[in-house]
Amino acid sequence: MNPDPEKTGLFLVGVRGAVGTTVLHGIEAIRSGMPTVGMVTGGAEFAEVPLADVERFWVTGWDVTGNAHRSAEDLVRTNVLPADLVELSAGLRDRLEMSIAPGVPEPEDERMVDRASADRLQLSANEMVDAIRGDIRDWMQADRTRKAVVVYLASAERERSLPEVWMDPQADVLALLNDAPLDISRSILYAIAAIAEGVPFVNFTPAPGAAIPAVAAYARKQGVPVLGNDGKTGETLMKTALAPMFRDRRFNVMAWEGYNMLGNKDGAALEDPKRAASKLANKDKVLGSILHESPGLHSGVRIDFVPSLHDWKTAMDFVHFEGFLGAKMQLQFTWHGSDSALAAPLILDLARIALLAQARGEGGVVHAAAAFFKNPLEFEEHDFHRQMDLLRKWMRSGA
Amino acid sequence: MNPDPEKTGLFLVGVRGAVGTTVLHGIEAIRSGMPTVGMVTGGAEFAEVPLADVERFWVTGWDVTGNAHRSAEDLVRTNVLPADLVELSAGLRDRLEMSIAPGVPEPEDERMVDRASADRLQLSANEMVDAIRGDIRDWMQADRTRKAVVVYLASAERERSLPEVWMDPQADVLALLNDAPLDISRSILYAIAAIAEGVPFVNFTPAPGAAIPAVAAYARKQGVPVLGNDGKTGETLMKTALAPMFRDRRFNVMAWEGYNMLGNKDGAALEDPKRAASKLANKDKVLGSILHESPGLHSGVRIDFVPSLHDWKTAMDFVHFEGFLGAKMQLQFTWHGSDSALAAPLILDLARIALLAQARGEGGVVHAAAAFFKNPLEFEEHDFHRQMDLLRKWMRSGA
Amino acid sequence: MNPDPEKTGLFLVGVRGAVGTTVLHGIEAIRSGMPTVGMVTGGAEFAEVPLADVERFWVTGWDVTGNAHRSAEDLVRTNVLPADLVELSAGLRDRLEMSIAPGVPEPEDERMVDRASADRLQLSANEMVDAIRGDIRDWMQADRTRKAVVVYLASAERERSLPEVWMDPQADVLALLNDAPLDISRSILYAIAAIAEGVPFVNFTPAPGAAIPAVAAYARKQGVPVLGNDGKTGETLMKTALAPMFRDRRFNVMAWEGYNMLGNKDGAALEDPKRAASKLANKDKVLGSILHESPGLHSGVRIDFVPSLHDWKTAMDFVHFEGFLGAKMQLQFTWHGSDSALAAPLILDLARIALLAQARGEGGVVHAAAAFFKNPLEFEEHDFHRQMDLLRKWMRSGA
Amino acid sequence: MNPDPEKTGLFLVGVRGAVGTTVLHGIEAIRSGMPTVGMVTGGAEFAEVPLADVERFWVTGWDVTGNAHRSAEDLVRTNVLPADLVELSAGLRDRLEMSIAPGVPEPEDERMVDRASADRLQLSANEMVDAIRGDIRDWMQADRTRKAVVVYLASAERERSLPEVWMDPQADVLALLNDAPLDISRSILYAIAAIAEGVPFVNFTPAPGAAIPAVAAYARKQGVPVLGNDGKTGETLMKTALAPMFRDRRFNVMAWEGYNMLGNKDGAALEDPKRAASKLANKDKVLGSILHESPGLHSGVRIDFVPSLHDWKTAMDFVHFEGFLGAKMQLQFTWHGSDSALAAPLILDLARIALLAQARGEGGVVHAAAAFFKNPLEFEEHDFHRQMDLLRKWMRSGA
Repeated sequence: MNPDPEKTGLFLVGVRGAVGTTVLHGIEAIRSGMPTVGMVTGGAEFAEVPLADVERFWVTGWDVTGNAHRSAEDLVRTNVLPADLVELSAGLRDRLEMSIAPGVPEPEDERMVDRASADRLQLSANEMVDAIRGDIRDWMQADRTRKAVVVYLASAERERSLPEVWMDPQADVLALLNDAPLDISRSILYAIAAIAEGVPFVNFTPAPGAAIPAVAAYARKQGVPVLGNDGKTGETLMKTALAPMFRDRRFNVMAWEGYNMLGNKDGAALEDPKRAASKLANKDKVLGSILHESPGLHSGVRIDFVPSLHDWKTAMDFVHFEGFLGAKMQLQFTWHGSDSALAAPLILDLARIALLAQARGEGGVVHAAAAFFKNPLEFEEHDFHRQMDLLRKWMRSGA
Repeated sequence: MNPDPEKTGLFLVGVRGAVGTTVLHGIEAIRSGMPTVGMVTGGAEFAEVPLADVERFWVTGWDVTGNAHRSAEDLVRTNVLPADLVELSAGLRDRLEMSIAPGVPEPEDERMVDRASADRLQLSANEMVDAIRGDIRDWMQADRTRKAVVVYLASAERERSLPEVWMDPQADVLALLNDAPLDISRSILYAIAAIAEGVPFVNFTPAPGAAIPAVAAYARKQGVPVLGNDGKTGETLMKTALAPMFRDRRFNVMAWEGYNMLGNKDGAALEDPKRAASKLANKDKVLGSILHESPGLHSGVRIDFVPSLHDWKTAMDFVHFEGFLGAKMQLQFTWHGSDSALAAPLILDLARIALLAQARGEGGVVHAAAAFFKNPLEFEEHDFHRQMDLLRKWMRSGA
Repeated sequence: MNPDPEKTGLFLVGVRGAVGTTVLHGIEAIRSGMPTVGMVTGGAEFAEVPLADVERFWVTGWDVTGNAHRSAEDLVRTNVLPADLVELSAGLRDRLEMSIAPGVPEPEDERMVDRASADRLQLSANEMVDAIRGDIRDWMQADRTRKAVVVYLASAERERSLPEVWMDPQADVLALLNDAPLDISRSILYAIAAIAEGVPFVNFTPAPGAAIPAVAAYARKQGVPVLGNDGKTGETLMKTALAPMFRDRRFNVMAWEGYNMLGNKDGAALEDPKRAASKLANKDKVLGSILHESPGLHSGVRIDFVPSLHDWKTAMDFVHFEGFLGAKMQLQFTWHGSDSALAAPLILDLARIALLAQARGEGGVVHAAAAFFKNPLEFEEHDFHRQMDLLRKWMRSGA
Repeated sequence: MNPDPEKTGLFLVGVRGAVGTTVLHGIEAIRSGMPTVGMVTGGAEFAEVPLADVERFWVTGWDVTGNAHRSAEDLVRTNVLPADLVELSAGLRDRLEMSIAPGVPEPEDERMVDRASADRLQLSANEMVDAIRGDIRDWMQADRTRKAVVVYLASAERERSLPEVWMDPQADVLALLNDAPLDISRSILYAIAAIAEGVPFVNFTPAPGAAIPAVAAYARKQGVPVLGNDGKTGETLMKTALAPMFRDRRFNVMAWEGYNMLGNKDGAALEDPKRAASKLANKDKVLGSILHESPGLHSGVRIDFVPSLHDWKTAMDFVHFEGFLGAKMQLQFTWHGSDSALAAPLILDLARIALLAQARGEGGVVHAAAAFFKNPLEFEEHDFHRQMDLLRKWMRSGA
């Protein structure tokens, strides 16, 4: 039997996590006719754009621990996944479990991961990349898949330093790996492996990934699209949608304080201030960029772990602004959404955008995807509406 | 002494109201160096556009009752105008009081207005327009003013019907006036008078004004700019800034309920459901227009009079939306702002835009001003960001 | 086999509604060991009080339409009832369906009810009461139940007038029934029937029930406890818990505006202003009673039907208050809860309280239950904390 | 001329601060007929209690820096004090400035205080107390005042340790002073000095003051009332008013997260985590105490400095709770009030309560004042309503 030439692999780093599980079941739901609510590229305005068919995506990936069935049940209990969908997809999860590869854990997590993943900690950085490349090749051969995307969904990691030479776009990343620090961000390893295999790489977390100049340059050279960083799904989305109005009406925004409550694994990881640092920085800087005419702006962001929220996240923001003749006004908002249901459709969008860029021969950073990220790679405009204008123009540009 | 050729009259209908009083004092504050916070056209990006100099605006207008000093004191008490500014501007208000003309009241308000305004109720529609034209000419002569703008700021009025012939752009408005109904909206009379005198007309209220096809056509024929309707200053501004994000992310917005509390004269007028009808319609329809892909949208708007708020208005909105796989999410916001401090700088913007259009020889509706209005004349796009794009393009188009 | 002497009937008017369905499943859940969260009388402080055993309650009642299975499924979909509990309780619902009696519908609803209920509209008021009494007797005999409580849970009804003579505590209600108006509130008929059968009557809706002096007097005479009116489950609970703080700190509350959004059948019924009137009156008057030292208080209550909320209700309240030296401050709150999950445990509480009163020989209105109602019968104190003090004292008084 | 026997000194530690300034002007406003809004003891229910006459209070005290005029102007600008009241009270502030004594600063603040206060840092602890006692005697003699209260209003201080012997109620505090650590909390010194002079001591801050067992015992022995700690004016007031409802309705409160934003000096001091620690602890523990039946309660409190708020404080709280059958519900509130306008009337209440206790011969901790404090001395009940019941009973107990 001939392979389906349109079959496309979605290789997720952290595939058993809540977002990965929602992606897996979401594709299945779309196959059975559920509408693509929340998927940007599913809109009528992009009907003519030659985007990959979501129904032909198949999901596998890496993980260091967990179980796909338990993840799905957790998401039923917290009202994210419909119970009947999860029930009907047991076989799908069984097949997933059989294809999952061990992940490359962080050194400090050694004791919390499964044996096969812990074993990968014994490898050198070069060997780690080779192992990841091997997984990619195995999956593509086994399923006769010609196209694939790697999406990085691991938990927030603590910030770490990288030798200065990585900041040099001229540097040869493969050579640099020989002297890479032991705790090098796993996002970099997965990025390099994907690029080396000619597979686009999407980084949906605050980890560096292709933000490292040497990595981005490698992607450009290899002609492989890279997209990131840090998915914009909730409070930051609201900020970048609302702040332009304050700018355009020339209000003087004196303070914008954001309080985030999360109940999932990501929330637990962010309890560690070292892990929260990059995310907080990403969430905070969008305001200064858009509201540059409010020079006294006091902006604060906090993230707290509130276990009872499970997959839900609640953000409460307070905006204190000055209008004409110094009148002091306020805006306050509360956003309450499911982390996974917000993120999952964007993963599908980003995979389609990555594949379209690849089909168009565009290697390196895909700037047109900026609207999806808190910290878009090589891109300074955070105004969501301008980012969407760019996306729309790019999507139609191939026509 | 030669007249200042740049001196520009700002003739406000309802000049003693809270917004008029804030405009009057705001210009004075800007003259003394206060920043133009809240004024869209005051931004650096428009520095090269040949806009009228706000410091050369002088304010007078019509009113049917009230006292400028008392209005100013009320606005100090409710923390909108700075006490020292009001103290220093007593002479300005004295001069204003001497120049104010009687207004044309609504028939039902006869007993609540001052004698001179009540007298104008004895006039026919034609004579009313002549009286208004006379006021305009008198002011321009007395102050040797070559340029002026009329801005309609009267309280919300009840909806009323107009003979069908007014909907015909071919009709001759001046002839139509002969058979005009007794209770014809005063906004139409002021609009016709301004156009007849070659003075641009801005309608900041939900009244019809230049929305009547025969009136808009007259403006086009005379080459006089007309702008309106119904200033977008608070909850509706938020809606048109936020709804595009829901549309672009393809959320299914199931409900958007808006609750508005107002404490000023406008709030009191809107207690009368007949007067509230146009405003509610304007506030409500923006959502359906932007969120046309959320076909089941349940949208509600209420306006309540809460006297203790005085000039402040509080809006509480609840947005219920569906994301991926049917996950139900919520957004809630509370906006608390001063009605007058929100509106006044926009009056200055609109006057400048009207004058620029006139200088460029553009008569009829100025579509580029859509971003300022809940119900923009001859314009269907309510997305605030797209409206701002249009404004930016138009502002720079003369360069 | 001997009957269980502790077996207690819970006869619900509107037994197939969302609250009734939650009561039915709730008892089952408690039997299987689920904690009694939300049940006031389940607390350790009342462990010594000889309250009826909830696990021995059995549920049946009247309804005019609907199906118990569909109601349960709806409550699963909207995240109120756990899916597995509903699945396991199918037999319970089958038995319920077999025992349900036709209800006495309102004349205007004739076309929306099932045949057997519509037939009851042909009866005179006296015959209606007899039919209800027959149902009660049948249930008690069939199940050899010695004790029971009737709880009125019908949808909000429009206000209607009753001949003045009903306001006379001396009047003989059974005689009055002969001339009762055709559209007499069904709550009165059910109340009289229950009292006549010596079964306590709890009215959880805004309908009059035992608030009619002749009915209350009849209960007293017969020595049967009656409790009501209008369960206090959400926004009004918040108001009566919070307003005492404003009173005690002597803030001057200038405005308290409450906006309620409901998505269930009750919400749909309340779209009809005639049906909403009693509920709005009950919700509004609690504030004036507690905040009698804030004489200028402007209080408003609105209820809107927002279908997407289903069983959930969201209340957004805005409180504008004045502190020392006239400083104007604000409190705003949003309450988001499940109507049925809030109401159902209180039904169990009220049944236990009614039975305890009966065991203690207390007939007529049980004032100690005031904390459960928006409009407590024969009781003027709305301060929730004082009401709870009274309940505590009464509960322990028999010791 | 004979002295007024009812004249009462109000000696404030931090008299030039925002709260002190509001107390000073508030008394003046009451003298001129302004209502006592926000003053608990001003209510009709206490009309028969022989409380001190607020109009006969006169204010002076200690401060380490600042200027009373500038403080008053700041409070006008931020809309707390009425401009005309401040204008009319210039003479009052002049007299205050002449009577103010230097304060005892904290060692770490040496460079930020005025010369006379810095000089007091050279004194031993014993000499510091003597200096404070001298100030009290001087004021009482100069103004022939027979009665007075000392109120501690200094900024939040960092937590520090005290030798274990201070925890012994048998210890002699005057002797302990000889070996007191250099950085002993100034609240202890002022408390000891006040007690030694027979003047009641009120501690409105999170500092220890009379919470130290040896100090409380000294007050008991000397028969001097002491009241504290940490005024309950905003978010914590809300918590202790609302949490009892959650307890009484037996909701399972899973999370209660409180976010506080402050703009005044207190907010700036609390930016230092060491200074914030006691306040956070006080704010947090009230919930665990009231909600002891919600064992999994996750409660968080944060305080952020938001300079643009000036004297205003905004608290946003999120309450996540579980109802019947596990239904997850939410309450969210936002409190926006003026710190000084909330605190000042309570200072007057506490002074009156302290004086009443003294008149009744009650020395030591006045438990009846618990309702005013976040961390009431020797008192475990945090339920605001129960605290108010106690206050009411105590107030009337002398009748």
